[in-house]
Amino acid sequence: MLRLQILGTSSAVPAHGRHPSAQVLWHDQASFVIDCGEGTQLQCQRYRVRLRTLEAILISHLHGDHVYGLPGLITSMSIFGREAPLRVYGPKGLDEFVRTVLRLSHANLRFPLEVHEFWPEAGARVEVLRTARLRVTAFAQNHRVPCLGFRFDELPKPNRFDGARALADGIPRALFALIKQGHPARLPDGSVVDPARYRGAAEPSYSYAYCTDTGPDPHLAEHVAGVSLLYHEATFMQALEARARETGHSTAREAAEVARRAGVGQLLLGHFSARYDDLSALLDEARKSFSASELAIEGAVFTLPYTAPASGEDNLSVVDDE
Amino acid sequence: MLRLQILGTSSAVPAHGRHPSAQVLWHDQASFVIDCGEGTQLQCQRYRVRLRTLEAILISHLHGDHVYGLPGLITSMSIFGREAPLRVYGPKGLDEFVRTVLRLSHANLRFPLEVHEFWPEAGARVEVLRTARLRVTAFAQNHRVPCLGFRFDELPKPNRFDGARALADGIPRALFALIKQGHPARLPDGSVVDPARYRGAAEPSYSYAYCTDTGPDPHLAEHVAGVSLLYHEATFMQALEARARETGHSTAREAAEVARRAGVGQLLLGHFSARYDDLSALLDEARKSFSASELAIEGAVFTLPYTAPASGEDNLSVVDDE
Repeated sequence: MLRLQILGTSSAVPAHGRHPSAQVLWHDQASFVIDCGEGTQLQCQRYRVRLRTLEAILISHLHGDHVYGLPGLITSMSIFGREAPLRVYGPKGLDEFVRTVLRLSHANLRFPLEVHEFWPEAGARVEVLRTARLRVTAFAQNHRVPCLGFRFDELPKPNRFDGARALADGIPRALFALIKQGHPARLPDGSVVDPARYRGAAEPSYSYAYCTDTGPDPHLAEHVAGVSLLYHEATFMQALEARARETGHSTAREAAEVARRAGVGQLLLGHFSARYDDLSALLDEARKSFSASELAIEGAVFTLPYTAPASGEDNLSVVDDE
Repeated sequence: MLRLQILGTSSAVPAHGRHPSAQVLWHDQASFVIDCGEGTQLQCQRYRVRLRTLEAILISHLHGDHVYGLPGLITSMSIFGREAPLRVYGPKGLDEFVRTVLRLSHANLRFPLEVHEFWPEAGARVEVLRTARLRVTAFAQNHRVPCLGFRFDELPKPNRFDGARALADGIPRALFALIKQGHPARLPDGSVVDPARYRGAAEPSYSYAYCTDTGPDPHLAEHVAGVSLLYHEATFMQALEARARETGHSTAREAAEVARRAGVGQLLLGHFSARYDDLSALLDEARKSFSASELAIEGAVFTLPYTAPASGEDNLSVVDDE
């Protein structure tokens, strides 16, 4: 299961109670922070987000609203006792940013910190990291400064064992374990079982992609083709298309068009301009091009297989003065 | 009038809804941000703090909980249209911190930014800046890394004109303006008025001092002697004195003893360790040594002449989803 929680969706400056870009993705025993705008550690506390299983932090680009929360998140994890190594991935400049800030602020981390800078060739998707069951890839986007998009794919899962069929065929239960492992077991009558006959459907694998900040890009739909869930920036509405071009951003309609061309399962709109307080018009605009669109509201939790978002407010209520 | 609003009072890590160190001080047409922990710009939005008259930012030291909010505050002011020069003051390393972060995050400020690094000799108090009616000085404190304390003194105000006495003496009102300006006016009977006779009491000048992070220091009480309001860190309670020594911090009792020795008007305790959720025991401890002690609660506004704090919650309510 993939589980995503939105921590920040504001563009450039915080506004209307919205925070700079940040989110957390959980998968099995690993979790990932994706972008880390100022206040990410505060948002984690607000929503009681635990980062014990944090495997890596992925930074799309070095604009402040995507990275100014990184030093605080790292140093606080150290103060809270983390000792496991932490990897941070992003474009060139990230290492100097992190190292300079940590050095000048006298930070002594308890854990090894690796900062990996990389840049994919135009149109290519490169592997960033791989856990036992998840593959993370990255691709270049179309922004004013070098900016990465990320894609998370669950690796193919084992086929289920079709126990009902085996029982119907009169296979003794004692042989199930062998057959599940793909061995050609021998029956009491001497005949040999073909394990392929009892291989059921594979469990579905889910996928998630994160695209911000980017204007329209010829390769983007291909990079995120078929993902179960796509987060795509929608900084402006179509009426401000010129402003979107000028700043290297997308409109809600453009985000929806990427989702439609890529054939994704569900679209989440985010990275909203401070000029929009009420976001419903952006959602309406996107839904005209791609009906399975939703707003990435801060605190909301989205799970794959896709379910309607949980508000995260149960978490919120335990923090007494926020 | 001096007016102080507390934006953050947490030590090291945010906790219990408390944020890293930051506050704003207003005086006449100038305001000052004092320390700038992560989330300062978010706290400014939460409490509707306007920074149009911001004259300077004063940074006590470079530990992350006092400085990680600085790049975001600076870049957001630029995005919001500030064009007036901004000065930032603090210890060595501040300039490299600010310049490196702004450069790597591709920030193009609309306004000139001056970063001034300085360090006072032991026991000395140096002038940091001076406005038409306020003098700001700084002094070294006793912390693990170079750390400044700040003192704000209203410059002496003009004496009031004692109009009641002049009227009782039968001085014509037409001569008041001359006498107020200190001129020896001539009366209709030929006698000459001594302007000193009508010089009333001077309007009181108020002062504020900010002391964090520091353990006990032989010069501290002298540096903050007689201030109307003293913010002093109280990271721990006296039971954890050893921990306070080890980390370069003070206990609530030690803060109160500084206030008592310095003869200040009012003490505000702040910079609370994450181990304390309820802060009432720290306040009780301080009040045993110095009864005019108060907790620096986030959002609260303190004015000089000293009045009981306003909660700032009226401001809070207008931010709809915080």
